Amino acid sequence: MVLKELRQKRPLVHNITNYVVAQFVANGLLALGASPLMSDAIDEMQDLAKISDALAINIGTLNERTILCAKEAIKHYKALNKPIVLDPVGCSASALRHDTSLELLESEGISALRGNAAELGSLVGISCESKGLDSHDATTPVEIIKRAAQKYSVIAVMTGKTDYVSDGKKVLSITGGSEYLALITGAGCLHAAACASFLGLKKDPLDSMVQLCALYKQAAFSAQKKVLENNGSNGSFLFYFLDALSLPIKLENSLIKEEW
Amino acid sequence: MVLKELRQKRPLVHNITNYVVAQFVANGLLALGASPLMSDAIDEMQDLAKISDALAINIGTLNERTILCAKEAIKHYKALNKPIVLDPVGCSASALRHDTSLELLESEGISALRGNAAELGSLVGISCESKGLDSHDATTPVEIIKRAAQKYSVIAVMTGKTDYVSDGKKVLSITGGSEYLALITGAGCLHAAACASFLGLKKDPLDSMVQLCALYKQAAFSAQKKVLENNGSNGSFLFYFLDALSLPIKLENSLIKEEW
Amino acid sequence: MVLKELRQKRPLVHNITNYVVAQFVANGLLALGASPLMSDAIDEMQDLAKISDALAINIGTLNERTILCAKEAIKHYKALNKPIVLDPVGCSASALRHDTSLELLESEGISALRGNAAELGSLVGISCESKGLDSHDATTPVEIIKRAAQKYSVIAVMTGKTDYVSDGKKVLSITGGSEYLALITGAGCLHAAACASFLGLKKDPLDSMVQLCALYKQAAFSAQKKVLENNGSNGSFLFYFLDALSLPIKLENSLIKEEW
Repeated sequence: MVLKELRQKRPLVHNITNYVVAQFVANGLLALGASPLMSDAIDEMQDLAKISDALAINIGTLNERTILCAKEAIKHYKALNKPIVLDPVGCSASALRHDTSLELLESEGISALRGNAAELGSLVGISCESKGLDSHDATTPVEIIKRAAQKYSVIAVMTGKTDYVSDGKKVLSITGGSEYLALITGAGCLHAAACASFLGLKKDPLDSMVQLCALYKQAAFSAQKKVLENNGSNGSFLFYFLDALSLPIKLENSLIKEEW
Repeated sequence: MVLKELRQKRPLVHNITNYVVAQFVANGLLALGASPLMSDAIDEMQDLAKISDALAINIGTLNERTILCAKEAIKHYKALNKPIVLDPVGCSASALRHDTSLELLESEGISALRGNAAELGSLVGISCESKGLDSHDATTPVEIIKRAAQKYSVIAVMTGKTDYVSDGKKVLSITGGSEYLALITGAGCLHAAACASFLGLKKDPLDSMVQLCALYKQAAFSAQKKVLENNGSNGSFLFYFLDALSLPIKLENSLIKEEW
Repeated sequence: MVLKELRQKRPLVHNITNYVVAQFVANGLLALGASPLMSDAIDEMQDLAKISDALAINIGTLNERTILCAKEAIKHYKALNKPIVLDPVGCSASALRHDTSLELLESEGISALRGNAAELGSLVGISCESKGLDSHDATTPVEIIKRAAQKYSVIAVMTGKTDYVSDGKKVLSITGGSEYLALITGAGCLHAAACASFLGLKKDPLDSMVQLCALYKQAAFSAQKKVLENNGSNGSFLFYFLDALSLPIKLENSLIKEEW
């Protein structure tokens, strides 16, 4: 199991991330068993690429300076053949986010692209609503994820009520989890950073991403159970989820399905 | 009740806020039932103004770049007649904060101004201490809030042991709440963002702000009860408060009083 | 006891800190009994130096703008003879961090330098691993801390499984605490800010730092006890630790030892 190896090797994950969720992402990576490093100082990208095992780029609160930094970082991680995950947060909300996401993807350094249905849909030219997608049109998620993986030659990871992972050939789905993941900020951002930590181990990337999605959903499910037992809600979920990520997590293979 | 409508419509609140409390504000808005969006990238202000229902500007960790961004944002939200809340954090602490607050207020785009007694006092030329004000001079808060509302043609919201809301004509006070609100960071910032979420529904603005103050105090009171039951303190209050904001909140009309 | 005085005087601590832990640091200072202020706007450094009791500089997410800001701040705090704590986060990880730390130390305005063994070691030319140091070479920590204090004419504070404090003449060690401190982000950053709050009281600086280390470890120990009682883990520790910092903390003198 990849998680076991992660907890032994504690890969260093460099995050160029937004200031909203940076603390949650760092605590989440620590809970999972990885080592977090946050930096968006362009002058140290080369140094950090040397010591880090993977890079996670999140455009949640992008600005001119951090966009330049992301480009510089990609250059160095790509040269060292180290995995890079892109989380194109809100890329359907503004031209700046959309264009930046495309530009980073066209660098050909991105190993994995993680987003929700609205984000990945907008990057492959399919307009959709994240909330409605799972229920209204059962065939669309598989189509979106496959296209995203093929168009950008990446492992595509799409999270939602059901998660989908594809390398452009296969598509797998993962069910389970908790609706609380949509009620806290940063659940997606931490997911992307966790993807980077798993890819940093250089195991089979498709399988690693499927395992990560399943473990993440399982931890969320355990946390939700704790929340309900304690009459809690959104706030309690925040720390029960960090608790759950740091404890042993059982991989529920029955929730993983080959879709294509 | 405005909260019920908020939870149905889930208005999108764009925050130009400080990096200290951004996560707490996002989680608090989600708990309350609104959708948070954080951005201070000047190049996407026009796009975000189109899709957001309200804007909350918080100068807690202002800098040259974010001040320019706030000005650009005001231009677009004002043109679209969408509500803007200003939280002039620490505007009595430095000339930069004071002058920036005045400049933003003079844009004539601000719909509501939310601060504590020291902040609003400094903006209407009355020097005062937040802590001492409620007790030492019972007539002053009403005077400050009225003047702030009149001087800047805004709904003024002043939070503290007692909250005050004014449209320049009426002044209402709201009691209750919890002293823990002063012992965590971000309680005021989230309050301002919550004001924006309520104004985004375009109901009667004075009544909306009074309801918001009352609900916020009620949620804090419930959270404090949980803290005491569990022998907790500052840390526990943080998540019990988010829990309380996400659950049904009863409006205690007996704690609302017309002052003027 | 210094903590008692802190809770009476509530010194204002200005933090130029990273966006990852800013919220945790602010909440931690409030819990301890100090007043936090976060700002990295160069234009208000002079104003803030006048009203603050101490400055804490943390280079966790440094960039060109905040480095300039730190230099400007040091100038004003130094002129007013107010204490400054430097936390050289990750200064062994990149040339940018290392050079910036040295440059700030050479300003001769730094009163206290707080870091882990890897950070302080790198600043005195001793390469070491934080994790291994305590166990592998019992004499090295004392050597590092003494050299750091002497080389930069500061109170040096080195945190880890055992903490060390030195003024270049004496070296004291403090044991106890909790391993959870290494499993959350920001424990070191808050420690540095807390050092600043204690120094802001202008008591004997060496004794103040020893007391702070002992109290911090004691609060962590209490929080860990709560975590274990409630079958919690990393996430729970975050708020139990804030709870513990806000409650009465007993100083365990038996855990303090004179090393040199």
